[in-house]
Amino acid sequence: MSKPLNIGMIGYGFMGKAHSNAYRQAPRLFELPYTPVLKAVCARNADKVKPFADTWGYESIETDWRKLLERKDIDAVDICTPNHLHAEIAIAAAAAGKMVLCEKPLAMNAAEGVQMVQAVEKAGVANTVWYNYRRIPAVSLAKKIIDEGKLGRIFHYRAKFLQDWTINPEVPQGGAGTWRLDVTVAGSGVSGDLLAHCIDTALWLNGRIDTVCALTETFVKERKHALTGQVEKVGIDDACTFFGRFENGSLANFESTRYARGHKALYTFEINGEKASIFWDLHDLHRLQYFDHRDEGKLRGWRSVHVSDNSGEHPYMDHWWVPGLQIGYDSSFTHQVADFLINLGKGQPTSPTFREAYETQLILDAILQSAKTQQWVQVAKG
Amino acid sequence: MSKPLNIGMIGYGFMGKAHSNAYRQAPRLFELPYTPVLKAVCARNADKVKPFADTWGYESIETDWRKLLERKDIDAVDICTPNHLHAEIAIAAAAAGKMVLCEKPLAMNAAEGVQMVQAVEKAGVANTVWYNYRRIPAVSLAKKIIDEGKLGRIFHYRAKFLQDWTINPEVPQGGAGTWRLDVTVAGSGVSGDLLAHCIDTALWLNGRIDTVCALTETFVKERKHALTGQVEKVGIDDACTFFGRFENGSLANFESTRYARGHKALYTFEINGEKASIFWDLHDLHRLQYFDHRDEGKLRGWRSVHVSDNSGEHPYMDHWWVPGLQIGYDSSFTHQVADFLINLGKGQPTSPTFREAYETQLILDAILQSAKTQQWVQVAKG
Amino acid sequence: MSKPLNIGMIGYGFMGKAHSNAYRQAPRLFELPYTPVLKAVCARNADKVKPFADTWGYESIETDWRKLLERKDIDAVDICTPNHLHAEIAIAAAAAGKMVLCEKPLAMNAAEGVQMVQAVEKAGVANTVWYNYRRIPAVSLAKKIIDEGKLGRIFHYRAKFLQDWTINPEVPQGGAGTWRLDVTVAGSGVSGDLLAHCIDTALWLNGRIDTVCALTETFVKERKHALTGQVEKVGIDDACTFFGRFENGSLANFESTRYARGHKALYTFEINGEKASIFWDLHDLHRLQYFDHRDEGKLRGWRSVHVSDNSGEHPYMDHWWVPGLQIGYDSSFTHQVADFLINLGKGQPTSPTFREAYETQLILDAILQSAKTQQWVQVAKG
Amino acid sequence: MSKPLNIGMIGYGFMGKAHSNAYRQAPRLFELPYTPVLKAVCARNADKVKPFADTWGYESIETDWRKLLERKDIDAVDICTPNHLHAEIAIAAAAAGKMVLCEKPLAMNAAEGVQMVQAVEKAGVANTVWYNYRRIPAVSLAKKIIDEGKLGRIFHYRAKFLQDWTINPEVPQGGAGTWRLDVTVAGSGVSGDLLAHCIDTALWLNGRIDTVCALTETFVKERKHALTGQVEKVGIDDACTFFGRFENGSLANFESTRYARGHKALYTFEINGEKASIFWDLHDLHRLQYFDHRDEGKLRGWRSVHVSDNSGEHPYMDHWWVPGLQIGYDSSFTHQVADFLINLGKGQPTSPTFREAYETQLILDAILQSAKTQQWVQVAKG
Repeated sequence: MSKPLNIGMIGYGFMGKAHSNAYRQAPRLFELPYTPVLKAVCARNADKVKPFADTWGYESIETDWRKLLERKDIDAVDICTPNHLHAEIAIAAAAAGKMVLCEKPLAMNAAEGVQMVQAVEKAGVANTVWYNYRRIPAVSLAKKIIDEGKLGRIFHYRAKFLQDWTINPEVPQGGAGTWRLDVTVAGSGVSGDLLAHCIDTALWLNGRIDTVCALTETFVKERKHALTGQVEKVGIDDACTFFGRFENGSLANFESTRYARGHKALYTFEINGEKASIFWDLHDLHRLQYFDHRDEGKLRGWRSVHVSDNSGEHPYMDHWWVPGLQIGYDSSFTHQVADFLINLGKGQPTSPTFREAYETQLILDAILQSAKTQQWVQVAKG
Repeated sequence: MSKPLNIGMIGYGFMGKAHSNAYRQAPRLFELPYTPVLKAVCARNADKVKPFADTWGYESIETDWRKLLERKDIDAVDICTPNHLHAEIAIAAAAAGKMVLCEKPLAMNAAEGVQMVQAVEKAGVANTVWYNYRRIPAVSLAKKIIDEGKLGRIFHYRAKFLQDWTINPEVPQGGAGTWRLDVTVAGSGVSGDLLAHCIDTALWLNGRIDTVCALTETFVKERKHALTGQVEKVGIDDACTFFGRFENGSLANFESTRYARGHKALYTFEINGEKASIFWDLHDLHRLQYFDHRDEGKLRGWRSVHVSDNSGEHPYMDHWWVPGLQIGYDSSFTHQVADFLINLGKGQPTSPTFREAYETQLILDAILQSAKTQQWVQVAKG
Repeated sequence: MSKPLNIGMIGYGFMGKAHSNAYRQAPRLFELPYTPVLKAVCARNADKVKPFADTWGYESIETDWRKLLERKDIDAVDICTPNHLHAEIAIAAAAAGKMVLCEKPLAMNAAEGVQMVQAVEKAGVANTVWYNYRRIPAVSLAKKIIDEGKLGRIFHYRAKFLQDWTINPEVPQGGAGTWRLDVTVAGSGVSGDLLAHCIDTALWLNGRIDTVCALTETFVKERKHALTGQVEKVGIDDACTFFGRFENGSLANFESTRYARGHKALYTFEINGEKASIFWDLHDLHRLQYFDHRDEGKLRGWRSVHVSDNSGEHPYMDHWWVPGLQIGYDSSFTHQVADFLINLGKGQPTSPTFREAYETQLILDAILQSAKTQQWVQVAKG
Repeated sequence: MSKPLNIGMIGYGFMGKAHSNAYRQAPRLFELPYTPVLKAVCARNADKVKPFADTWGYESIETDWRKLLERKDIDAVDICTPNHLHAEIAIAAAAAGKMVLCEKPLAMNAAEGVQMVQAVEKAGVANTVWYNYRRIPAVSLAKKIIDEGKLGRIFHYRAKFLQDWTINPEVPQGGAGTWRLDVTVAGSGVSGDLLAHCIDTALWLNGRIDTVCALTETFVKERKHALTGQVEKVGIDDACTFFGRFENGSLANFESTRYARGHKALYTFEINGEKASIFWDLHDLHRLQYFDHRDEGKLRGWRSVHVSDNSGEHPYMDHWWVPGLQIGYDSSFTHQVADFLINLGKGQPTSPTFREAYETQLILDAILQSAKTQQWVQVAKG
């Protein structure tokens, strides 16, 4: 029989919605040793969080996250707040003996990150960070292919995350919906927001990054602050590009921006190996492009694999529909919930743990330092 | 406040799962005047339906659909059985004063269909048929564009539904999972299964079809029957193509098959108008292709519209995620549930009603008659 | 050493230009037993044909095609006139002992066609018809794959040729550039112009077509005639669709139109076999799409083959550039010239010969008859 | 009347073939004030150059390029040799009063380049460098759109040139066909070969690059030398990536490699502007992708423009076929010949001149210096 696992969520924005949906979906689509129970959702403003609680069926609300942590009926805390609160809450949650599921990026920087790692490890609580793209079936399939050795020696890893939503200089910084433009809340701009995803996937698929050299730019230098009403200097990076070297000898070329007109969430990665290459694109997340040099010469070409086979060939897809029918972005969270609960049942960690996500923080720190100093930077070892 | 609406589902196969998911999702993503309550699910075999009920949270099970219809606590009956049971159940449900949501195709043929229409209309019960593709946001957007007159006079409507899952002659006919190959249960082959979808969308987007001329083929003439164990003659159409004329003067070219290697559920349609054309493909259901002749000459081209805008531009998408993040096949059912309940609140019908779906049956009958007689056939008026 | 082969061309329109370019290109790119010498070009209007002769380097001009046929210094006659002149000229050319290269379609109808076949065969002169798409490298590769048996039993052959250039009702019929809308000159509309290409390729790739059932439409019923200045009834088919059965048991679905907004020359074909499928598209003529069911399950997908390998893998491409660099539409004519001259050196015919192209006429006749009688028609044996 | 322009070509490899074809094609497709006459082709080995001269119709051969320069009957010298000979020949040709058409890259480095610029400018001879991709119609269309201001302020310029032909470590360095791997002959690896193209296009479309930071890698450290037969250290860059800043404030991200499995000549560029973005890909060179934010919200999408309109909308295409029919890679050279001769008739320079191509050398030098020093480098002003 499946046992209840009581969730206390902090925050109720876009990610709060995505996670809530996943808690609802996972037990319907997967056979799980634990069933998430939406015990409480917490936010400062009761009037705003109440309708959210009603919609998603949270049994109660809290307006002080410290209160939530004190509750005996909460097994796991899900942190969906803006970045600047991750560390404080996560450390307190671990101290209170709660499991912690934290939105990405783990922290504002590596210094915070290391404390968070120490906190959950010392407390011995299950922990994971919502780098959800690992569990898009096409990305999981990429991992499977790589682990089988199909690509051979890797030469290149290329990733981009392109958006266009801040081109308009009238978009404010700070406040709900735009806190990602306020450096005191977000920690950084596209690097922590978008590159963090690219880096997490890369570490998973291609291993450690050794050295980086980066460039950042802030195209719109001043924006009105949504909370103060004042025009203030923009502290975030609007665009961040870096290249570098992986430990396995392959080259990295990563880019992120919110100024690429025509792209909404164009997260793509391509890996070129000696024998085969793969390419993936979030805008068509249900497809994996694959080129195999071992195919017969006259018929070699990039294969567009529709990752929707439900017979066991394609990761997670045996839990969904039938071949040819794609699943949505939300599925990635559902799969992470399912994996977290299955792993919990086995007493195993769920990737990426805080420790694994801390690696991404180290790289982000190195990138920002490189951009500032205009020097190559060696990534610190985690 | 949202009122409960008690659902009794009959059948628990692939469609039972898709509908159940929709009942669960709709009230989380949409503000609805009614909230579906999964009161009961019914199937002959209690051992098989019990786990399904547990997974999806049905409060009870039944093993005789007549019993289900007698229950006072059921407001609406959802028919997810194989086709040969639709008519009998729907007519009885209407007689019992239940709303009826029926899987497509409505019936085995038009003769059954007309009785079903009469039954629900006489009983005055809300009714709808699960032609879910109308509510894929890209398809709904196509409807919006057409209704705005953007295409001008229509010349061509082209649709295909291609699959490849029955190429292997070892696939049996009859039984769970393969009843669609048994003519006594399915009524027809790809025409009722696949073309029915294409026709429903076409009627909605382009109006009535006047005349048709069709070709059917059964590539594998004999298959083992899963229930009898005997090799028996195959009675279904493996492939069905037809052309014809719409009432608005445009030409139809429709094709369906389960013998198109490489295609899993390739439902595509293209409409060519005087001023603009559109194209849609179920394999990338979140995109609509659009060509507008009024664009500046040197920059005319097919636009690939990523139908994921959440600001109100794209149908249904303001209920989901943020731009660039696609939704899955399952969303189409969720939208139909949402629309059904919203319409119910307003006392309005939900398209396609039984009457509208009956139009599709008339065309299917004409197609099969044409294929048999090798003559053009005038579609009967509904 | 390469011997001269003296060409006399009749007509100087779009096809005259394409053929002339091919005569110029072929000997530069291929090692040939014969070198085409552009001896004369013939058209009624000397003032118009003179600049054409100068541009392409024809040594002389003629204004009467009968004169051209009388010239001793002409070895081969290339017929680039509108369709209604093909038969008369070709028969006279054969009688004069000239080789004949004739633009497609071979004739206005099968009755003319059979006489042309008899004429060239009786005279024993080399002959070919410019169904140039056979020699697009991607199409030639398709043939190679099929001949190797890679597709297995064929179930479906689907072809379309879509254009949009006659939507505007102000486009006249008759005269230079628009003679294809004048039935007395063209013989038919899209069937003879566009479908003829589709049929020729199909016969080559998939064998004989047995029976057909067709639909034609004339969307714009009257157009001004460019020569008479009068508004006259339009006699051509604006759109023509047919389905039918190939001798090998596969089903045909063919469509052509000049009313498909957004498509300029969208000739596509797809062949679905038991084991593999292929797809080609003239708008991206350098690519062949290929799906192979024998690929490893989790990595099956349509391969986009860039047909540009110059190591011998891809037909004709070893005569051009390096991998990744595509060639143009014009190459198809260059390849036909090269093949014609190489075959001539070996005393072998060049496909499609008049006899082979006559097969296409028989099918076109059957299609038009079917559309007229609204009956299935058995294709006459050639 | 068109006047003859006598060409003397030096070299007869891949580029010798491409240029020769262009000299043959240009006067057939364009009305030109000068007609190229293929007077002589020069190479050290008479036995090898003779068949080339015969194929392309060169009137004579030379085996010493200095002899060629002495000939009075040569108006223009076309340099198709490996890179290390460009400077010496070009300078001598200018001194001899010949026009000079030089293959790209202009020189081994900027130091050579500046002398070449001075030589042609001092001599006052017409000069151009074969950066042929500018004259692919889709690329020329990109230029037109940008010059019209359609993109608004530019934020990003992204370019890649990916190949995979040197992954096999058995590929030798040096010798015919592989001199590009010998640093003493090529000057550099992918930077001078592939990036040079990307940079030339970028300078043309987006203006000067101010600062760069680069990374190079040599994956295969030793290769057999085709001439010496010895295994020798590889001196070229196998991969080269750089980012930097354009003078207009936009960011550059460029990458080139010969180790990207599955790509043959994947030269792509994307430009993101405030109002619109464009994308181009050499593998489908006849298409330009365009996104315009000013399009109606619900129908915004990337447009795939088939650059084949012959009515004047699309650059150069009125000289070719009809809409929908693509042209090949070779057309870019044909267009450069046509432009060179038309400009010559008007006494105007043809872009890129030696001076313009020298800009590319300055950037290449900066890139290689940056990669070596691991520092940002300011590009010297030309």
